[in-house]
Amino acid sequence: MSAKIEKDILKIVKDARKASRDIAGVSTRDKNDALKKMAKALLANKAYLVKENKKDLAVGEKAGLSKALLDRLLINDKRIKGMADCLKDTARLPDPVGGVIKAFERPNGLKIEKTRTPIGVIGIIYESRPNVTSDCIGLCLKSGNAVILKGGKEAIHSNKAIFKVLKNALKETDIPLGAIQLITSTDRAAVNILLKQNAYVDLIVPRGGEGLIHFVAEHSSIPVIKHYKGVCHTYVSEHADLNMAHRICFNAKVQRPGVCNAMETMLVHRETAIRFLPVLIYKLKQAGVEVRGCPLTRKIVKTKIKAATKKDWPEEYLDLILAVKVVDSLQEAIEHINTYGSGHSDAIVTDDKKEAEEFLKAVDTSCVYVNASTRFTDGYEFGFGAEVGISTDKLHARGPMALEDLTTYKYVVRGRGQIRE
Amino acid sequence: MSAKIEKDILKIVKDARKASRDIAGVSTRDKNDALKKMAKALLANKAYLVKENKKDLAVGEKAGLSKALLDRLLINDKRIKGMADCLKDTARLPDPVGGVIKAFERPNGLKIEKTRTPIGVIGIIYESRPNVTSDCIGLCLKSGNAVILKGGKEAIHSNKAIFKVLKNALKETDIPLGAIQLITSTDRAAVNILLKQNAYVDLIVPRGGEGLIHFVAEHSSIPVIKHYKGVCHTYVSEHADLNMAHRICFNAKVQRPGVCNAMETMLVHRETAIRFLPVLIYKLKQAGVEVRGCPLTRKIVKTKIKAATKKDWPEEYLDLILAVKVVDSLQEAIEHINTYGSGHSDAIVTDDKKEAEEFLKAVDTSCVYVNASTRFTDGYEFGFGAEVGISTDKLHARGPMALEDLTTYKYVVRGRGQIRE
Repeated sequence: MSAKIEKDILKIVKDARKASRDIAGVSTRDKNDALKKMAKALLANKAYLVKENKKDLAVGEKAGLSKALLDRLLINDKRIKGMADCLKDTARLPDPVGGVIKAFERPNGLKIEKTRTPIGVIGIIYESRPNVTSDCIGLCLKSGNAVILKGGKEAIHSNKAIFKVLKNALKETDIPLGAIQLITSTDRAAVNILLKQNAYVDLIVPRGGEGLIHFVAEHSSIPVIKHYKGVCHTYVSEHADLNMAHRICFNAKVQRPGVCNAMETMLVHRETAIRFLPVLIYKLKQAGVEVRGCPLTRKIVKTKIKAATKKDWPEEYLDLILAVKVVDSLQEAIEHINTYGSGHSDAIVTDDKKEAEEFLKAVDTSCVYVNASTRFTDGYEFGFGAEVGISTDKLHARGPMALEDLTTYKYVVRGRGQIRE
Repeated sequence: MSAKIEKDILKIVKDARKASRDIAGVSTRDKNDALKKMAKALLANKAYLVKENKKDLAVGEKAGLSKALLDRLLINDKRIKGMADCLKDTARLPDPVGGVIKAFERPNGLKIEKTRTPIGVIGIIYESRPNVTSDCIGLCLKSGNAVILKGGKEAIHSNKAIFKVLKNALKETDIPLGAIQLITSTDRAAVNILLKQNAYVDLIVPRGGEGLIHFVAEHSSIPVIKHYKGVCHTYVSEHADLNMAHRICFNAKVQRPGVCNAMETMLVHRETAIRFLPVLIYKLKQAGVEVRGCPLTRKIVKTKIKAATKKDWPEEYLDLILAVKVVDSLQEAIEHINTYGSGHSDAIVTDDKKEAEEFLKAVDTSCVYVNASTRFTDGYEFGFGAEVGISTDKLHARGPMALEDLTTYKYVVRGRGQIRE
């Protein structure tokens, strides 16, 4: 069995590598044309996609998957339209390939251009959401890469169906068919084998829960860009406009608590706490938020709230829960964030420019805010269109990872016969 | 023993992490001042450095190290001056930290800057050349990073001495002393333990032979930027100026054959081969080069040359040896390079602009040349001053890796109270 899987995976990675050489040179116009044809094909095959998806839902229900998980699995007309829209949006975005990052001339006359090129072959390992299949095909194709997809086994029928529809659409285009690959084996061994193909695959992006990402990072011989958790902070300084602070903190916690850029811990300067905390916490509780406070917070707020423990500071709740800590200084806030944060998104609310600049400089995170909600960390909100994820790594890509981050570069050097003396 | 090593390494990585927060904020002026003081200290301690180095040389001679290896180990007055000059050069280079890569404003008024920041803690694992100790301290310090050095055991006395002199010099500066760390254990376990400290170390750069790099890549839980071999090609097209091709190929092979950017394989178009090969190969042989040719090359060249075998195409000789192959087309040349090359440096010699552009686009390599010697792939020649190495990876850094590549970035977002609707 495992020998068969290995043979299949080897064929897939070799075909992808071969196709990556061709897709790297496809014109922007031809890539956009393919994206639009794929979008059209999804919309034309709604019935088929919904039918195949029902098979996954039936298996999932039998297996006792939670309602939330079943909802993630679901494909309906609206979601198919969403997938098609994402492909069309990707067609409209600028093509990163060939862009010149910098150009300079050396004293000996050599002209050097640092030019964006596709990375090559990108492997995406993801969990149950079937739309990742078409989103990632769109992003990788537009950035000139071949892509190998390995989705969760709960979504296998849906992924196969989406893939089939998209691949059929590509037959009428100039895109090499080998540039999109789906691993259909649901055996765990398939992932292990894929992760060792560093001779053929250039980058692995795992999308999903922390467990999956840790597993991939640990077992891969291919570079991995990791999208760990978002333990996001907002620090309300003693120089904050408290109305603004109230609005920002409420938004960062309540507007969509289940996502990685929602606030998990609020830090408040001691001078501000008495004026600020009672009203805000009252409002948060009304909105259904469970507040866990440090001793001083609990003292200041008259209503009963839970005590925050050491476990709360590094915790990503992804829920209507908020840890609150009163701090003595900007320095303490920065240290708390650099100690317990996950390097995702952190904000300060202050009217003091000097303090703001110190915070922006000292906090080690992918996106650092002054006077705005952390909820803006998002490829779409940043104007990058779509995104592969929010990288909490520091190498290659940090923060919202979009088309440009799916490219590398090469130095193109033009001479007139120069030799080294 | 191993528990003691582990304890020592843990202290080192934790101290480095702590110091990395401080050195990230040190001003350019203070960093440059420190670099100049370190340069001065090296020159003032020549006698001490030479004395300690003699201990390594004595052990090395006893152990029967080759002459080439002993030469790499050697520290003399000239080499100490070279180390000091590198530190002074690094002081003169622009500070990458704080540089704005791009700035843009969103429709909601959010102002976003993508700003360079230090990576954090960088581990350098290297072999016998002691100058790496001071070069890397200089580069990491200037880019605002803490650095952990682990040199080869053959150079342990020399590395300790250089480190001591530099650390003493830092005592008179504003640089946190914890920002430079040397692992003095010569036990292999020390490297293994270091490679697992992904909680404290952000990046590992191995410098040395292929074996070391493979070992590090395989055992590290920390991202590694790899500097594998340089199997560099020059393709002489049927549209080449043959005088220029002669000069470029001779230079790329002969000027310094032991380095990674020297040419290892020459590809020649069939139409050109008869006019070009006999004279060039005669000259190369006169210069002591052993030529290994494909069947057609051997037929064209009247003098006797060895046959190239399949083993020759992916080989990095680092010596006065050259593989030569006659090809039928630009396409065949590109395919040969993309199959057997190492993604380091590859060149075409041609007067046909369209052909040149096709080659520049299709060859998947860190530095791609038209009408120049591959020997220019080098941080100094590119105008980057010093370099950590030549990355043959595609992620984060590719080609000559210098100060900018020792930084990451963060998105700095300035708002006026914006919240997500």
